[in-house]
Amino acid sequence: MSQTANDPNRKSWITVPADSDFPIQNIPFGVFLTRDDVITIGTRIGNTAIDLGALHQLGYFRDIPLTDDIFLQDTLNDFISDGKKTWRLVRNCIASLFDKNNQELQNNAEHRKIVLFDLDEIEMQLPVQIGDYTDFYSSKEHATNVGSMFRDPNNALLPNWLHVPVGYHGRSSTIVPSGIPIHRPMGQTLPQDSETPVFGPSKLVDFELEMAFITTDANQLGEPIPVDEAEDYIFGMVLFNDWSARDIQKWEYVPLGPFLAKNFASSISPWIVTLDALEPFRVESPKQEPTPLEYLQYSGKKSFDIHLEVDLTSENNPPQTISKSNFKYLYWNMSQQLAHHTVNGCKVNSGDMMGSGTISGTTKDSYGSMLELTWKGENPIELSDGSKRKFIEDGDTITLRGYCKNKDVRIGFGEVSNKLLPTFNSKKRK
Amino acid sequence: MSQTANDPNRKSWITVPADSDFPIQNIPFGVFLTRDDVITIGTRIGNTAIDLGALHQLGYFRDIPLTDDIFLQDTLNDFISDGKKTWRLVRNCIASLFDKNNQELQNNAEHRKIVLFDLDEIEMQLPVQIGDYTDFYSSKEHATNVGSMFRDPNNALLPNWLHVPVGYHGRSSTIVPSGIPIHRPMGQTLPQDSETPVFGPSKLVDFELEMAFITTDANQLGEPIPVDEAEDYIFGMVLFNDWSARDIQKWEYVPLGPFLAKNFASSISPWIVTLDALEPFRVESPKQEPTPLEYLQYSGKKSFDIHLEVDLTSENNPPQTISKSNFKYLYWNMSQQLAHHTVNGCKVNSGDMMGSGTISGTTKDSYGSMLELTWKGENPIELSDGSKRKFIEDGDTITLRGYCKNKDVRIGFGEVSNKLLPTFNSKKRK
Repeated sequence: MSQTANDPNRKSWITVPADSDFPIQNIPFGVFLTRDDVITIGTRIGNTAIDLGALHQLGYFRDIPLTDDIFLQDTLNDFISDGKKTWRLVRNCIASLFDKNNQELQNNAEHRKIVLFDLDEIEMQLPVQIGDYTDFYSSKEHATNVGSMFRDPNNALLPNWLHVPVGYHGRSSTIVPSGIPIHRPMGQTLPQDSETPVFGPSKLVDFELEMAFITTDANQLGEPIPVDEAEDYIFGMVLFNDWSARDIQKWEYVPLGPFLAKNFASSISPWIVTLDALEPFRVESPKQEPTPLEYLQYSGKKSFDIHLEVDLTSENNPPQTISKSNFKYLYWNMSQQLAHHTVNGCKVNSGDMMGSGTISGTTKDSYGSMLELTWKGENPIELSDGSKRKFIEDGDTITLRGYCKNKDVRIGFGEVSNKLLPTFNSKKRK
Repeated sequence: MSQTANDPNRKSWITVPADSDFPIQNIPFGVFLTRDDVITIGTRIGNTAIDLGALHQLGYFRDIPLTDDIFLQDTLNDFISDGKKTWRLVRNCIASLFDKNNQELQNNAEHRKIVLFDLDEIEMQLPVQIGDYTDFYSSKEHATNVGSMFRDPNNALLPNWLHVPVGYHGRSSTIVPSGIPIHRPMGQTLPQDSETPVFGPSKLVDFELEMAFITTDANQLGEPIPVDEAEDYIFGMVLFNDWSARDIQKWEYVPLGPFLAKNFASSISPWIVTLDALEPFRVESPKQEPTPLEYLQYSGKKSFDIHLEVDLTSENNPPQTISKSNFKYLYWNMSQQLAHHTVNGCKVNSGDMMGSGTISGTTKDSYGSMLELTWKGENPIELSDGSKRKFIEDGDTITLRGYCKNKDVRIGFGEVSNKLLPTFNSKKRK
């Protein structure tokens, strides 16, 4: 891995606040609307957004084979299709251009004015058009907690769980970026001790602390991706909140899985952090016992040490951290997930997104959902003003954050933060 | 409904063979590659394909507000986004132009040469870019059969089934048009009396006789579509084969639903037949007992009388019809499905596809899958040469056909026909 962009000693001529998620070693990719109402692809250093479309037009990527309009698009899909070699050339070029020892752009005030934006001048968009979205269920602790609550604490994991990276298809159309408020969903639920369902607002709206990875075109129809090649087809990762309505889920999900309980909304952080930027933070995944089938056996370190936090902010209370977890807890890693997903020949395209499933740790303060943190509401969370939360209430904002850190560098994901609104007012219908 | 295009007395100057699915009253929409290797949007009368892109360039749609390139695209998504009023104007215009009493194009040999193609000169493509694909489970007979086989014949339907139009998300990336061969999927299965899974080719590959509808942009995020408005957002229907691997499904599907057992491939007929064309064939849906919740209560006839047939063709045997069913058997209709899908605010876009679920009737010869037709393989189907089928074997072709017919007119869907190939040869990997 000769990624010059990862040089921990490099400093940028752009100011980077202490503990920023976005030092010059990060170079994430996103899509934003500029102050001139133009959509462009960009990156970020510190609190400065950088317009890659404009940089390209000004000739700064002249040594890289790129189509003229590759960054003048409203999604990253085509750039991601260009493949890992191109991503690396672009990332290294950006690292060099913003290195404090590089005068080229640093000393060109006219160009700087065109390509640099303060964060409050831009509006982050969904970074990719997500063709297909899959959600896995890869935290052993989460699956065990759910199994203990709803089935049998002594036999919490289902028979397939230790053999299959269980996953299911989700809805792409309702994935939104950080900042977009979400309406409490209406739906059917079965009241306790009743045999007939009722209709109304969900009473048990929950978050799920997840991460997700974005793929490039990986295969043709019918063709499996070997587990040790899987990372070649992963562009990067985002934070992911898989909003859930537990009461709707409980009534609808047998036998075909969650549907309306999930597809009212899911939200992601807008900057995609590349696997290359995460390279210094590789760690072993948990030991797998029993040994999985051969197509799931991998070599090397395929997980990443990513600290995760969840804040709940209510209208009367300041942000309160309600969970601290870590991506490395996941039992099944991304390479196994992608190998499993394609072992039957399922086609994977540029811009597809695959969620990790709720990431819970072993301790009670590391659980990745209200369902687990309050144990079905039995142990409510107390907020600063003394009010309590079993699940999420109207007006609450849920914020997920994630970052990697070693002695040299901190690489972060920023946040995905969304407010829960009351149910949609149907009178607004056109 | 003043759809002049539905006039049963109209004849076209294009020859239409007796019992054709595509009289001038049909006017389906599709996408094809022409003899000149150009992708265009088209329609079909009899066995003649009509290039709508060329027709528009020649000015034949001059009285309809359409963008210049609306038919010069590789999907119907933008045209579908134009909405029902535009679809009707275009359909009526085509009906008039190809009416035998209309001389305009009929007498213009030069134009006819540009816009008309024999079927063997074109190659049908997937008609839409499918953003999200949902599959329902709306046949009471199918759900009862499956429940009887795998659970309890005396209590076959799950408690939610009569209240919820059960559905789940599927994979868009592997939906292919008729004609594309499909590889037998590899995967994990649990052998009988074993506690550990094995890896290998699925031994129980099945078809599912379904239909699917294609939507237009229907709502904003958060906004439900009322059941009695739902049809305004349905462009049309296709035949749909939801290929399934029963052994993979059985091992993987608890608790989050089918995944690799379904997403190796699904196939659709390439011509989308509009709801307008199906108007003369409206029928009542089955009576629903208990009465569903209010948001699922509709008025009028919301189902259609569509005859369905399944042929199995093996390498040593001619086509053999193995099932005859009807779309009208479905317990939950499309309006209920779309109202349910959006009652939580789930966003529906142009080009989304929603499958009906396997359409089985009450008699054994009307079941919509091998699983049911052979009752888990207990009663194999005998082919002409004496060989037997419990499930689908390599080299078998499955063909679904569908049509409506009354004394005046026959409106059909053509077919979706795909051959099952052996497992993918991984040595072919690039």
